[in-house]
Amino acid sequence: MTFKLCVSSFLKERATVHDRIRHTGLLEKRMSAAAAAALIKPGMTVAMSGFTGAGYPKAVPQALASQMEEVHAKGESFKIKVLTGASTAPELDGVLAKVGGMELRLPYMSDPALRKRINDGELDYMDIHLSHVAQHTWFGFYGGINIAIVEVVGILEDGRLIPSSSVGNNKTWLDMADAVIIEVNSQQSAAMEGMHDIYYGTALPPHRMPIQLTEPEDRIGVPYLHVDTEKIIAVVETNAPDRLSAFAAPDEASNQIADHLLDFLDGEIAKGRMSDKLLPLQSGVGNIANAVLAGLSRGGYRGLKAYTEVIQDGMLELIKDGTLAFASATSFSLSEAGIEEFNRNVDFYRERIVFRTQEISNHPELIRRLGCIALNGMIEADIYGNVNSTHVVGSHVMNGIGGSGDFARNGFLSVFMSPSTAKGGKISGIVPMASHVDHTEHDTMILITEQGLADLRGLAPKQRARVIVEKCAHPDYKPMLEDYFARASRDSYGKHTPHLLGEALSWHQRFIDTGDMRP
Amino acid sequence: MTFKLCVSSFLKERATVHDRIRHTGLLEKRMSAAAAAALIKPGMTVAMSGFTGAGYPKAVPQALASQMEEVHAKGESFKIKVLTGASTAPELDGVLAKVGGMELRLPYMSDPALRKRINDGELDYMDIHLSHVAQHTWFGFYGGINIAIVEVVGILEDGRLIPSSSVGNNKTWLDMADAVIIEVNSQQSAAMEGMHDIYYGTALPPHRMPIQLTEPEDRIGVPYLHVDTEKIIAVVETNAPDRLSAFAAPDEASNQIADHLLDFLDGEIAKGRMSDKLLPLQSGVGNIANAVLAGLSRGGYRGLKAYTEVIQDGMLELIKDGTLAFASATSFSLSEAGIEEFNRNVDFYRERIVFRTQEISNHPELIRRLGCIALNGMIEADIYGNVNSTHVVGSHVMNGIGGSGDFARNGFLSVFMSPSTAKGGKISGIVPMASHVDHTEHDTMILITEQGLADLRGLAPKQRARVIVEKCAHPDYKPMLEDYFARASRDSYGKHTPHLLGEALSWHQRFIDTGDMRP
Repeated sequence: MTFKLCVSSFLKERATVHDRIRHTGLLEKRMSAAAAAALIKPGMTVAMSGFTGAGYPKAVPQALASQMEEVHAKGESFKIKVLTGASTAPELDGVLAKVGGMELRLPYMSDPALRKRINDGELDYMDIHLSHVAQHTWFGFYGGINIAIVEVVGILEDGRLIPSSSVGNNKTWLDMADAVIIEVNSQQSAAMEGMHDIYYGTALPPHRMPIQLTEPEDRIGVPYLHVDTEKIIAVVETNAPDRLSAFAAPDEASNQIADHLLDFLDGEIAKGRMSDKLLPLQSGVGNIANAVLAGLSRGGYRGLKAYTEVIQDGMLELIKDGTLAFASATSFSLSEAGIEEFNRNVDFYRERIVFRTQEISNHPELIRRLGCIALNGMIEADIYGNVNSTHVVGSHVMNGIGGSGDFARNGFLSVFMSPSTAKGGKISGIVPMASHVDHTEHDTMILITEQGLADLRGLAPKQRARVIVEKCAHPDYKPMLEDYFARASRDSYGKHTPHLLGEALSWHQRFIDTGDMRP
Repeated sequence: MTFKLCVSSFLKERATVHDRIRHTGLLEKRMSAAAAAALIKPGMTVAMSGFTGAGYPKAVPQALASQMEEVHAKGESFKIKVLTGASTAPELDGVLAKVGGMELRLPYMSDPALRKRINDGELDYMDIHLSHVAQHTWFGFYGGINIAIVEVVGILEDGRLIPSSSVGNNKTWLDMADAVIIEVNSQQSAAMEGMHDIYYGTALPPHRMPIQLTEPEDRIGVPYLHVDTEKIIAVVETNAPDRLSAFAAPDEASNQIADHLLDFLDGEIAKGRMSDKLLPLQSGVGNIANAVLAGLSRGGYRGLKAYTEVIQDGMLELIKDGTLAFASATSFSLSEAGIEEFNRNVDFYRERIVFRTQEISNHPELIRRLGCIALNGMIEADIYGNVNSTHVVGSHVMNGIGGSGDFARNGFLSVFMSPSTAKGGKISGIVPMASHVDHTEHDTMILITEQGLADLRGLAPKQRARVIVEKCAHPDYKPMLEDYFARASRDSYGKHTPHLLGEALSWHQRFIDTGDMRP
């Protein structure tokens, strides 16, 4: 079913700042970011909007960081717990990390300053499946939420909120928080009004019902976020763009990975396992994902659908050229050029994109029903197909698991991709034993490096090892892996998943000691 | 909704052997087990019924094993690929393993002879989430199925099959196999007729629809298995009981683990997170599971529900005393005494038990909707909560992951339980780093040993480590774990998930070298 847009307000005119707040009571709650930030106290749990650098609050966190610095200068502590949708930007994670203002942060993150703090052991970071965050908050597993800070495009007369460039966990934050601070960002395109689909059918067990979505384009909710306006303690006007996502041309390794994947998909179609419309695509972000998307367009695919988390510039191009007929996501992470393109052809895109809460975009029920093709990056895989998505040498977290587990476990296909080496060859993407496991052998079907593609479906551990080393390992590391596997197959305690525990992690230790996994 | 039983045939009279095959065409296809086994050729993929020692074919696999031995005696090879629901029994896995008649076996297994072959590296074993097996077979990931061998209680006039004491993957095997051998076992209680609920609404993506089940007792299917009778190439009459599951009294450690869990559940109720009816229970099998079930009865719980895989004697007792109001499962794994109890009070139990296909009993969509409490055993957990369910010292597989991943990832609560030590103290159940990971830190909420309970919800890795070591470690190992964590926190490459890779697996290596994890 498609949804005929029939929204009433912001599209008709070029909205001015004041047009964006139409609820008279809330107009009176306008205040400066500093005044709003002053409502946040040490120890509070603060839930913020934001997903992959889009739709995060731009002003209050910065004002809060300044106030924290003043308190810290007096020798006192001022830290809060921060919950988000996923990664945000320097104006949120960056500033709060720099002033040491967070004691806990969850879930996915990507800010360099925040990452450094976490890996220096200075703040606690919880890495969580993105589909789990909202429900675990409801379940009470993280305690209550004192304040939610949510960026929106505008506020309607009756207090309903027009969601911004990401939805993330905003519905849950608004429902659960004791108090709410709204940032109304007049830089966010008013043309997004009506493109969101906020599902209000979730419940706590034992009261849950089937989610009646059967196609990526189905609408099962409403275009607005609801909030008890009595809970709103501040409205802050902002006028700043999302952090720009630069859209780099894919490198050679990424293009080779994309070519392997496209060959594989052609083969699956030839075997009758999928039609030439494939199945709904989930695509991570970054270089390889962009190369894969570009490859689908080059490869002549048309009329595909995406059921994914993020729409970046590359996906907008696919929609434009007909490769993608429809895309469902939870976040719109566009560069400045992407935003311009969207605004230029807004009527076209509005019919072909929907934004959902992340509990729906990442819901196991829906990913399994739709049969998504899950395309995600990895840090390393071991010879048995266990995948490390998060930790360099087992202890240093990069970004987090994000939604990769939601899609890999439940999709029709789970694909993990990485160049076969990193740091100029000093790190192998294929190792004897993964130094941290995010996706077990039970959840990984296809591994791809620029060297080739390993199809692990229907294979037992030792069969997997032979295929992974043969197809995916870099020539510098292949003899080392073959040697390890041969000796392990001979000398291992058990011969089902052969390992030599004394050296299974020695490559990682060598990298720590010498800066190179190679002897 | 409850289902009023209105079945017509086997219950009314005490069935004789011949009453069990009412389809005249199929009566003519009766043959000996040896003649049926002779239809199976080397290299074939053979899918068999059976789940946790219940409902597996009793005669044809044994006849096949004899024929394989004869072929092997001539110096020729005779191996097949074997797919099942889960573990079977000596008469299937045992005999085929002993004669070296399997080249591939999937999924879960527990037969000692089979386990030995696998860990000697002599046959390939694929460990798969139980919810994945049927769909991955449909997807074509394991190739086609040449022959299905399925035990049933009886065959109706129109060829529909009365399922036996387990359903497992039988629907999929019957649908997908090129040819079918039916074993009609007159020892299986005819009173089971009507207790099964076979869901025929599954489909391949993109044609999947919501599964409209919202309570463990809901019926969404039919009581019989369908099969194209043209595909049936043999009907074999048998008269042998399922392998008897001895029901041992729980030991002291199991009772202590049960007590910790019951205290915890009481606390959750007190905090308002669950009602005193809890949420649907999934319980693994074995000593600890039995202790937990007995504890629920002792603790005064009444009117609970189970949405689980196996109904053993312990669960039957809970149904009898009102602790459990209803149980949904895929297998009925009873001892001789349990079968007698069931037959004595058959009208009572028939209203309170349903058996489903394992794709439904273990379906992520349904487990998440129902909000199951997932109670599973483990081999070891590491200090960060990564759980190893399958591999001793990382290489020797015990049984397999079974449905633990289906329930742990999707349930309301995921609980993993184990004594804090094994082999008289020589193995610690809590280790610095898991030697194999089946359930990642993202999927484990509660760990319990006889020492105590670690509640990991809302905790970041280092917080988890402190709680796990404090609550769950055995006193012999606690100082060693504290020392490891302290040094890792100081010297680790990254301080998010501190590890010393040079010694992270040294406990396991020490056990291999000396037979004891302690220095």
